Amino acid sequence: MKKIALISTGGTIEKTYDELSGLLANKVSVLDVMLAALELRGVAVQRIQLMNKDSLEMTAAEHTMIAETADRMARACDGVVVVHGTDRLAESGERLVELVGTPMTPVVFTGAMRPYELRNTDAEQNLTEALLAVQLLRPGVYITMHGQVLQFPGVVKDRQLGTFTRPGRPERDP
Amino acid sequence: MKKIALISTGGTIEKTYDELSGLLANKVSVLDVMLAALELRGVAVQRIQLMNKDSLEMTAAEHTMIAETADRMARACDGVVVVHGTDRLAESGERLVELVGTPMTPVVFTGAMRPYELRNTDAEQNLTEALLAVQLLRPGVYITMHGQVLQFPGVVKDRQLGTFTRPGRPERDP
Amino acid sequence: MKKIALISTGGTIEKTYDELSGLLANKVSVLDVMLAALELRGVAVQRIQLMNKDSLEMTAAEHTMIAETADRMARACDGVVVVHGTDRLAESGERLVELVGTPMTPVVFTGAMRPYELRNTDAEQNLTEALLAVQLLRPGVYITMHGQVLQFPGVVKDRQLGTFTRPGRPERDP
Amino acid sequence: MKKIALISTGGTIEKTYDELSGLLANKVSVLDVMLAALELRGVAVQRIQLMNKDSLEMTAAEHTMIAETADRMARACDGVVVVHGTDRLAESGERLVELVGTPMTPVVFTGAMRPYELRNTDAEQNLTEALLAVQLLRPGVYITMHGQVLQFPGVVKDRQLGTFTRPGRPERDP
Repeated sequence: MKKIALISTGGTIEKTYDELSGLLANKVSVLDVMLAALELRGVAVQRIQLMNKDSLEMTAAEHTMIAETADRMARACDGVVVVHGTDRLAESGERLVELVGTPMTPVVFTGAMRPYELRNTDAEQNLTEALLAVQLLRPGVYITMHGQVLQFPGVVKDRQLGTFTRPGRPERDP
Repeated sequence: MKKIALISTGGTIEKTYDELSGLLANKVSVLDVMLAALELRGVAVQRIQLMNKDSLEMTAAEHTMIAETADRMARACDGVVVVHGTDRLAESGERLVELVGTPMTPVVFTGAMRPYELRNTDAEQNLTEALLAVQLLRPGVYITMHGQVLQFPGVVKDRQLGTFTRPGRPERDP
Repeated sequence: MKKIALISTGGTIEKTYDELSGLLANKVSVLDVMLAALELRGVAVQRIQLMNKDSLEMTAAEHTMIAETADRMARACDGVVVVHGTDRLAESGERLVELVGTPMTPVVFTGAMRPYELRNTDAEQNLTEALLAVQLLRPGVYITMHGQVLQFPGVVKDRQLGTFTRPGRPERDP
Repeated sequence: MKKIALISTGGTIEKTYDELSGLLANKVSVLDVMLAALELRGVAVQRIQLMNKDSLEMTAAEHTMIAETADRMARACDGVVVVHGTDRLAESGERLVELVGTPMTPVVFTGAMRPYELRNTDAEQNLTEALLAVQLLRPGVYITMHGQVLQFPGVVKDRQLGTFTRPGRPERDP
């Protein structure tokens, strides 16, 4: 049985709809609902609800806290998945590489462009991919989304395409 | 851009409901609908619709044809995903190992316990996992389902649990 | 607050998937799940789980029991909805007209051609319509499905179209 | 075959998600997608896309235009459904009563508290109810939502409950 830590920090993937205000916001975590819909064999998921924020509102201290938590859980588990808002996801990823270089076990960031609450969301695909990739990758810091695995450092969000790229480098270090 | 062959052979995952007979059967392929719902970056999927059968009805010749097609596509692509009925999936996987040992690129089998047509299906999870795993695994023959990757030979269906295991061995060869 | 009795008898609408046998069958009632997904104001629904059968297997005594239960609840409530398999739905409807002519309050039968468990089901549409129609119709025996209200006697299933018609008559008595 | 006009004006029900801005807005009409998911027998729906606005942004002239269009279509069809933002839905309904008193055929307003794009929406329920109610009601101006039919004048939105009521009056005129 593999032990995977699942750290949630908020972001679009976890936004829910408030019908009185008519707005999408980070209020309650939907990750437990998403996990319940997956059938996971041979994996024990340990949930860490760190924060629930739009990443545009994260401070430098919060990026550091996310990186430190990921590093600590990487020592205690066989791998770590971090659910994060896409706008500043790369900041937390780069911070982790700055702090520890290569963590003890793989740390895979993921997020979504369209909240889980939407009928047409990429949240389930991305969480499914992250939970699988974290079992197959060697220690390092990665993002998995949209059928693609990219390794930090050097990952950036392509705001036009609504996804991530690693300009001028291979997807993963050899 | 990675080139992945996606071979469909039928099975529960592709069963659709016929409202006049009230039965689930393998008639049309739903894989294209499933693919359209995924957001895939950096992957070009080549579809091969080989057959659309409940695997309980597959002949020895058909298992061999599936294995040979997977081997041929493994030479032409960066990886192969085979969608298959779970009841006889292991036969096709073992046949491929018998025929070629280790194919040129990874061949990942997958399927589902509950058809895509159902509200509560494992089809999307399993296809998502297979399309990701095939990019990360080294050459070999595997099954990916329910958050787990197992390597042939030696994989069997656990009919009680409704999933696959590899008794008395590690998940993957070292 | 209107009091509506909701009698369930089974049928396609309530069929669920058994992943070990690979078959759809009437085992547990999904009506409570369906009700929980609706937002109902001004209506108190009283659930009566009478049986859970494919209507092709109903005996004459069971059709009579359904009709008698509907008549009894029509005396106690402001209206009655009966969820029924479509194959023999008309038998129960005609039986009710034979037994009591016009019940005290409206009795609306409904069902589905595709189980609620399917992604592409007509179950929610038909239940929603029946719960609304029963509030607006005058006392009588009806079927509501597929955006249409038809009055008994004289309703038959059109097995080609997969819906109901009332040949040679207006939809409802004037 | 009944002829029903379906007038869309926008509102929460038609809001879609823009993944680049992360906001829900009225851009494209989703009513055609919703209609395609319904199975409608004996009803011919004529679509009129009048505008696609959050009703909080409607001007007095627009409320009048909606009322006049509904009145005109009520003369040409067997009934009219108007999809409208809930915040100012009552203004358009009252305007129609002021202008024509009782239209030639029933006019049924509806909307949603949660956009169709959400997994957990009331849009399908409310549209289904409106399309059924318009066939059963006598000429008048109504709102149908959440399993309830209320007649204008005198309908108001209850912003606490997120639904409509008709304070101090029966649901419908006798």
